[in-house]
Amino acid sequence: MIAEQTLTEHYYRVRLHSEAICRGLETEDYVVQPVADVSPPKWHLGHTTWFWENFVLVPNAPHYRIFHQDFSYVFNSYYETVGKRVLRTDRGNLSRPTVAGVYAYRAYVDEQMSRFLDTADLSPELHALIILGLNHEQQHQELLITDIKFILGHNPLQPAIKMPILENPLSVSRPSLVIPEGIYTVGYQANENQQPGSFYFDNEVGAHKVYLNKTTLAGNLVTNEAYLAFVEAGGYQNFRHWLSDGWAWVKTNAVQAPLYWHQVDGEWWNYTFDGLKPVDLDAPVCHVSHYEADAYARWKGQRLPTEFEWEVAAVDSAAVDSNQQLNWGARWEWTNSAYLPYPGFITAEGAVGEYNGKFMSSQMVLRGASVATSEGHSRPTYRNFFQPDKRWQYTGIRLANQ
Amino acid sequence: MIAEQTLTEHYYRVRLHSEAICRGLETEDYVVQPVADVSPPKWHLGHTTWFWENFVLVPNAPHYRIFHQDFSYVFNSYYETVGKRVLRTDRGNLSRPTVAGVYAYRAYVDEQMSRFLDTADLSPELHALIILGLNHEQQHQELLITDIKFILGHNPLQPAIKMPILENPLSVSRPSLVIPEGIYTVGYQANENQQPGSFYFDNEVGAHKVYLNKTTLAGNLVTNEAYLAFVEAGGYQNFRHWLSDGWAWVKTNAVQAPLYWHQVDGEWWNYTFDGLKPVDLDAPVCHVSHYEADAYARWKGQRLPTEFEWEVAAVDSAAVDSNQQLNWGARWEWTNSAYLPYPGFITAEGAVGEYNGKFMSSQMVLRGASVATSEGHSRPTYRNFFQPDKRWQYTGIRLANQ
Amino acid sequence: MIAEQTLTEHYYRVRLHSEAICRGLETEDYVVQPVADVSPPKWHLGHTTWFWENFVLVPNAPHYRIFHQDFSYVFNSYYETVGKRVLRTDRGNLSRPTVAGVYAYRAYVDEQMSRFLDTADLSPELHALIILGLNHEQQHQELLITDIKFILGHNPLQPAIKMPILENPLSVSRPSLVIPEGIYTVGYQANENQQPGSFYFDNEVGAHKVYLNKTTLAGNLVTNEAYLAFVEAGGYQNFRHWLSDGWAWVKTNAVQAPLYWHQVDGEWWNYTFDGLKPVDLDAPVCHVSHYEADAYARWKGQRLPTEFEWEVAAVDSAAVDSNQQLNWGARWEWTNSAYLPYPGFITAEGAVGEYNGKFMSSQMVLRGASVATSEGHSRPTYRNFFQPDKRWQYTGIRLANQ
Amino acid sequence: MIAEQTLTEHYYRVRLHSEAICRGLETEDYVVQPVADVSPPKWHLGHTTWFWENFVLVPNAPHYRIFHQDFSYVFNSYYETVGKRVLRTDRGNLSRPTVAGVYAYRAYVDEQMSRFLDTADLSPELHALIILGLNHEQQHQELLITDIKFILGHNPLQPAIKMPILENPLSVSRPSLVIPEGIYTVGYQANENQQPGSFYFDNEVGAHKVYLNKTTLAGNLVTNEAYLAFVEAGGYQNFRHWLSDGWAWVKTNAVQAPLYWHQVDGEWWNYTFDGLKPVDLDAPVCHVSHYEADAYARWKGQRLPTEFEWEVAAVDSAAVDSNQQLNWGARWEWTNSAYLPYPGFITAEGAVGEYNGKFMSSQMVLRGASVATSEGHSRPTYRNFFQPDKRWQYTGIRLANQ
Repeated sequence: MIAEQTLTEHYYRVRLHSEAICRGLETEDYVVQPVADVSPPKWHLGHTTWFWENFVLVPNAPHYRIFHQDFSYVFNSYYETVGKRVLRTDRGNLSRPTVAGVYAYRAYVDEQMSRFLDTADLSPELHALIILGLNHEQQHQELLITDIKFILGHNPLQPAIKMPILENPLSVSRPSLVIPEGIYTVGYQANENQQPGSFYFDNEVGAHKVYLNKTTLAGNLVTNEAYLAFVEAGGYQNFRHWLSDGWAWVKTNAVQAPLYWHQVDGEWWNYTFDGLKPVDLDAPVCHVSHYEADAYARWKGQRLPTEFEWEVAAVDSAAVDSNQQLNWGARWEWTNSAYLPYPGFITAEGAVGEYNGKFMSSQMVLRGASVATSEGHSRPTYRNFFQPDKRWQYTGIRLANQ
Repeated sequence: MIAEQTLTEHYYRVRLHSEAICRGLETEDYVVQPVADVSPPKWHLGHTTWFWENFVLVPNAPHYRIFHQDFSYVFNSYYETVGKRVLRTDRGNLSRPTVAGVYAYRAYVDEQMSRFLDTADLSPELHALIILGLNHEQQHQELLITDIKFILGHNPLQPAIKMPILENPLSVSRPSLVIPEGIYTVGYQANENQQPGSFYFDNEVGAHKVYLNKTTLAGNLVTNEAYLAFVEAGGYQNFRHWLSDGWAWVKTNAVQAPLYWHQVDGEWWNYTFDGLKPVDLDAPVCHVSHYEADAYARWKGQRLPTEFEWEVAAVDSAAVDSNQQLNWGARWEWTNSAYLPYPGFITAEGAVGEYNGKFMSSQMVLRGASVATSEGHSRPTYRNFFQPDKRWQYTGIRLANQ
Repeated sequence: MIAEQTLTEHYYRVRLHSEAICRGLETEDYVVQPVADVSPPKWHLGHTTWFWENFVLVPNAPHYRIFHQDFSYVFNSYYETVGKRVLRTDRGNLSRPTVAGVYAYRAYVDEQMSRFLDTADLSPELHALIILGLNHEQQHQELLITDIKFILGHNPLQPAIKMPILENPLSVSRPSLVIPEGIYTVGYQANENQQPGSFYFDNEVGAHKVYLNKTTLAGNLVTNEAYLAFVEAGGYQNFRHWLSDGWAWVKTNAVQAPLYWHQVDGEWWNYTFDGLKPVDLDAPVCHVSHYEADAYARWKGQRLPTEFEWEVAAVDSAAVDSNQQLNWGARWEWTNSAYLPYPGFITAEGAVGEYNGKFMSSQMVLRGASVATSEGHSRPTYRNFFQPDKRWQYTGIRLANQ
Repeated sequence: MIAEQTLTEHYYRVRLHSEAICRGLETEDYVVQPVADVSPPKWHLGHTTWFWENFVLVPNAPHYRIFHQDFSYVFNSYYETVGKRVLRTDRGNLSRPTVAGVYAYRAYVDEQMSRFLDTADLSPELHALIILGLNHEQQHQELLITDIKFILGHNPLQPAIKMPILENPLSVSRPSLVIPEGIYTVGYQANENQQPGSFYFDNEVGAHKVYLNKTTLAGNLVTNEAYLAFVEAGGYQNFRHWLSDGWAWVKTNAVQAPLYWHQVDGEWWNYTFDGLKPVDLDAPVCHVSHYEADAYARWKGQRLPTEFEWEVAAVDSAAVDSNQQLNWGARWEWTNSAYLPYPGFITAEGAVGEYNGKFMSSQMVLRGASVATSEGHSRPTYRNFFQPDKRWQYTGIRLANQ
């Protein structure tokens, strides 16, 4: 278990990173919600703070006085367990509380949390809850980045801002990787001798065996150059490449390219935090839906890996030969696995139990991490998940052979 | 014609009033758009400014340089004539330009306008255009007030702010007023000897004769107390009182009372700029749709006046006997007249021609003025109009007898 | 008052005409409801029968036994007063009762009505109710024809059937007609010396004076040839001709021509009961919405008449000079009058009171009659009404000059 | 390979069964489409016939003349490959072709098919295509039954008809069944020594190994009595039992019980082909969605089996001990497996390739068969699939323990 002092430090590091992400924003940028999936940045800042207040301070800190009851009401999210909540699609209508008010809320809660962490003799359960809260805030950090990108990237002015991430990192080319047929163990292996401070979500725990056929995974992610060939070959105009739902999605939304791509005078441009720039051909393709990833793979005569093939490739093979490591971490990688419970999965009691299990329907698993993922928040067993039409995250494509 | 100096003063007075309305706002309040009808306050401030830049300065001021081409794009409204425009329902997604940017835009245009008005030898057409621009801005002032009320009144915190209007004014009680059967002339009488600075919209000009039956109009507006009796008598539960479209509207939207009324522990409360307060029984009922006004009148065995009955009562009868003046100006009064062209109405050429005529479909006329109407912007011939389900304006009810 | 014998004959003549309209149908044609506005033919046949059963026989015929309680439930329409009803948009899901069952229902009710009319000593109220029922059935006869046309005209096979009407009648050309400025009396003049058997709806009664400016009305309806010029001049591509709501309607529905027009290899074809035929250039244009009628008139620099101009032209001027009669009766003519109550209009008590008044919102008045109007069901004071986007009725255009 | 004579017999047996299902229908019942998922019965009869004409006769039968080109247009379904098609939601608007016309189409094609099968020397590919066509028609037979039930079960008259199936069969009680941990082979094992006439779909072929943990499956399906306890315990009112999507579905659709259940005076009734009857407590629960199945299992502290657990239980364990056979065949059983491709799955070329693969998104696998499944159309490897909210099929629940 991490020493309390260290935990306080860890707490502050995470909390400050949320604010660092927002440093380049104007007050107005914190407020809007262009579509239901995208939350206003001030909501993320308030909601993560409410988590600490509601789940840690209120039940555990003696004499704690809540900051303001309105904040409890406004910043509750999907937790059906904890009182009334503001409907998700209404978040963008809330001009109050103000951004300054939200930062005051953060300051108040941070000070209270600091005192609490300094003085408390934390039980293992409480310690675990705090680690969960930090991981919760890190998840919202990635959403903060992608939601800010959506807000600015859908503004006709296409403004550039400073954001502490590198959207298109360089990467060393890797050979493809063969997974031999056989039995493999997948899933997070929780045990008594757990590394202090180690963390896992309820959806990834439960190590269990799977049987895999022989497969080859590409060592690298699909690049913009490779994907552009699909676009220019009329990939978005030919139903044969697409799942039925995917084709309906293309038609209904008149999709013609990845999100943030714009064709200007025959050339493809791409909105990034640096503003509108020509598409970087060497960078891994980004902001594609599962439908697009799947269609691209079919067009290439290949397929997407399953989440277990990915995990085995990322863990087991790497252990054998260090040159065999997959290049991962730049884009969340769509797998062809549906998001479903592992054997023995049990939903936890209480509001924390609403965390993951209830979303196990009609979503696909993404593996890896992205340039927007917070430091220390990725591991080979991590299961990210989104509906197959979503593409405002930093999502990309890795191919597998039959 | 007003002397140029006076016109400059008039220009500043109007322009400053727009900003005075917003004085109590936080930056965040300027940005949101909870429903399509309600525009973000900063949009109103920018759009009215764009009107001056685009219609007055660009075509008339020598060497004028536009403030920024992005502003032209973003703040164009319904004018199909003038280039691309931002879809109305997207206005609330625009965090940029910032509020500070919009105020800078206003300052720049105001300075340029001031110079232009000081030096120009204005043609009658240009003079008329400037008067139109001032009236256009005054219309947006009323919308600014009602849109701000909608934004704050739909925030769960129900915040109070300073707003330079008195929502529930006192009024002297007036007797009802009889209009004798006969021929009357209605509509604005434009003529050669026009009062300098006088103004009318294209939809109200064209004085013409109408034949009216004998009618009695109430001297006073329906009060909250009177309307509450309708609510408590189950008026919203009985289809017999309602137009077919109105009943569908009640059912679909689960309407139970005027907008901004909330029932708390059996008592009715009302959101105003002072926050949530008990319903003021003596004040005229406000924020009712045409459907509600019509249903209330039926329930009373009466009806709404036509727009011509209203105009005659406000003008002619008053001339006969000064005690016979209607009490008007607190609420826009729903009439039972559809918004249609007067005899001889012709749509003007160009973007200004999009002003009124094209909305002459499926809307009802409101007469009078409200507590939110700018000074000097009301007259007995003024024709306001909204769809029959709209109620975020300061709308009220006056009854007529058969 | 018509002698009872004569009333029975009149009853049978009307009832048989409803069935004559359906003679060319296949059983399947009776069942479908392609859009909410269009009811399945068997529903019209059942609903008109239910009117007789529910309003005449049940309350008045001694010992009458209803045919089947399910029929009462299924064939009730908009009458909120009379028990539960099948939602309008569900009518097309009802395979039962069968067509044969509906005809059996008709036969049963007709026999009972015949006996009742033979034996009853009808009170004036009951006599009036029967006349209302006959007019109600005649209204449904016109809807039967237009709904059948919609069903078959939206079938990809475009089937031809026998229908006892002449869709494109020949007409004598008439000169245009000048209405002098002045006071006119409009509306149906009900009086004590009422012609026996004469009939009027509650919405047209209440003769009253109106003041009209001088106007000229075209003697003839706009032809397909004239309208085609609008289509070919890009009328549907230029927003300037359109009301704001109309332009939104054109865009949303990708409207390019009147309903039932199809462009095949550059030529315009038209679905009629004879199947798909080249557009008949001499026939009056048909199946246009109010938006289209209004846009066409603007494009011609003219306008639509008001309902009172139309009525005066059809009645008064004709009286002065018999050559001055308008050519009317082929198409319902869109006016630019909204459908609103006449002075003194009062909604009747009970279900019959739901007949007309509650629709007085957001609809436009049509005057005249059409080729589908039943014999004896038209008169110069008749007020038909539809929402401005509707065009499956036999609607056309007459122009007026300012 | 089946002898040609036998194939003809097989063809006729299948074709006649489609018509036997419709024997109790009135003409009107063939026409309607209450919701997009439910096709009109005449469409099924026409579409299955079009399959034979378009895929077998047109390319293979010398001198074959198509019945009518309109039928080719109207009865094409989801096959994007084969020309224009009638949009699925428009099927219920088509009164033509008539039911008699569809039966004539069937008779014509059947005669041509009979001649063709008698004389042709069928290649293995053609033989396989005919077997596919028969299985395709059998799939539509089950849909015919469930679509007819939906049409009649949503008619307010709740009519009873003769249908050649037994909706609530008796069943012998079976003990639960333990699957030991280990490696199992699943999927259809196609091989050279294939049984003549055996058939499998492309989605179930590709035998492969899976690793299963130890699990216990219930021997019997959940009964109405057991499910009623969930209903009465407030199962539909407590979000904790539900997947997030499932809870939204319950709320949006105000779901309170399985489809076709109606509460009358406190008692639960159930629409079956015998009309409205009290719920049969001993029968397996039917017409539940995946959401309901999943919520019920959670409420019981259990879960749904995966498709592989089900397959192993149905095949392997049964082989060991014949008393260990699952009771299956009365209801399609929701599994907790998403519908995804088996290792090595490849989409076939051409229209037949649109058969299964393109639906592998956001659907769940059902295993087993139901009382509506055609004879010879079920096997332990069969993979049925529907979206998780669908419940108009004969779907039920089997529980598994962790």
